[in-house]
Amino acid sequence: MTKSILITGGARSGKSTLAERLALSLGPTAIYIATAEPRDAEMADRIARHQARRGGEWTTLAEPLALAQALRDSDGQAPRLVDCLTLWLSNLMLAGQDWEAAVQELADLLPRLASPVVLVTNEVGSGIVPDNALARAFRDAAGLTNQRIATACDELWLCVAGHPLKVKPQ
Amino acid sequence: MTKSILITGGARSGKSTLAERLALSLGPTAIYIATAEPRDAEMADRIARHQARRGGEWTTLAEPLALAQALRDSDGQAPRLVDCLTLWLSNLMLAGQDWEAAVQELADLLPRLASPVVLVTNEVGSGIVPDNALARAFRDAAGLTNQRIATACDELWLCVAGHPLKVKPQ
Amino acid sequence: MTKSILITGGARSGKSTLAERLALSLGPTAIYIATAEPRDAEMADRIARHQARRGGEWTTLAEPLALAQALRDSDGQAPRLVDCLTLWLSNLMLAGQDWEAAVQELADLLPRLASPVVLVTNEVGSGIVPDNALARAFRDAAGLTNQRIATACDELWLCVAGHPLKVKPQ
Repeated sequence: MTKSILITGGARSGKSTLAERLALSLGPTAIYIATAEPRDAEMADRIARHQARRGGEWTTLAEPLALAQALRDSDGQAPRLVDCLTLWLSNLMLAGQDWEAAVQELADLLPRLASPVVLVTNEVGSGIVPDNALARAFRDAAGLTNQRIATACDELWLCVAGHPLKVKPQ
Repeated sequence: MTKSILITGGARSGKSTLAERLALSLGPTAIYIATAEPRDAEMADRIARHQARRGGEWTTLAEPLALAQALRDSDGQAPRLVDCLTLWLSNLMLAGQDWEAAVQELADLLPRLASPVVLVTNEVGSGIVPDNALARAFRDAAGLTNQRIATACDELWLCVAGHPLKVKPQ
Repeated sequence: MTKSILITGGARSGKSTLAERLALSLGPTAIYIATAEPRDAEMADRIARHQARRGGEWTTLAEPLALAQALRDSDGQAPRLVDCLTLWLSNLMLAGQDWEAAVQELADLLPRLASPVVLVTNEVGSGIVPDNALARAFRDAAGLTNQRIATACDELWLCVAGHPLKVKPQ
């Protein structure tokens, strides 16, 4: 059985829509684990549009930091959709937490869960090298996070202009 | 018959060359619809190099804004190549026009045209999140445009280092 | 026999790891040609981590500029891994050399070499268009370099979250 699926792609490439469809193909209801916090108007607007798109089959949890714990606590209930890892990584770094340990904990946990997990992440490393050292460190961390979680997952998909390309398994 | 093809990819990934080859595979002559305006020397130089590469089979139209109208007006004559949607979107936004309505009009029109259309667009959402709110809004709009037009098209290709990867149909 | 392989992808997408695995699949030992110079602490740290990951099968050469010469000199000995073309291009531009001639020399050389070559490059053109004209010129040059070298190579792979997608041959 397919248990964990990572979906990556650029901004507005259709990742969340694909993730929602996949999660609901794995169970009659699903749990949406949002890593975003509505800290500003732009983010609040984005969250509201995401919620409006999802129907009554969804339960929503907000978990900006303790993602492995949220997955353990909700295991055995329904498929989970985690949206998204890039924001979770940013939350961990801003909170001064050990992001590498947290990513490793998540990678170790994924193969041991009973209910499926669909995770959304972002490609942030295919533009020009940022001038800013913090931005460079973040894109390196995001790339390593994507590699480690993709390795732990059963499937990896790349979204291109709203259309999925299967990268793993081939 | 294949009627509409969207080609996406990063800067200098070979999108225009592929688009020109595809357009000329669909008819003995083709119409090049340029959305660029030679506003500065860098852009003028880019347009001149594009024109020099194309041969006598091509007729060139410049249409920075009314793209759906240009496609309707030239329908039934020859395959059209639209280069590119990202610049068209930028032109619409700079002109204060309703870009979402224009994208929807184009998406609705594509399946109803008689002559083939090859459209070039750009991936702009796979770098680090821009600091600048306007740049973030533009990359969101570009991603949504790509999704909507890709959904309306019969084929979607991603160019990687000058080589095409078919995303749709699979 | 496969002789030349180009591996592209975003930052931290697993390109070097894949390249190392491919190079050692083509011979019992391999030659690592680093185009980086440890000019600052960040780069020195990155090089040290790359070296620590590689084992005793590797010989390391540093060649920031005269890459074609390094490939000719080491030909007939073992597979070579060039890491990476994007830095080489940047070195050429900073040194005021004719990068287009150097890229053409490399593209012409690759099919004539006896020992295999695995080359790593970077996708830098899928973010928002840079404000800075120099950054735009660099991403254009990097895209053209990738196209020309990919055309000269027998294989082209795109790394996505640590996992390879074959682009050429298909």
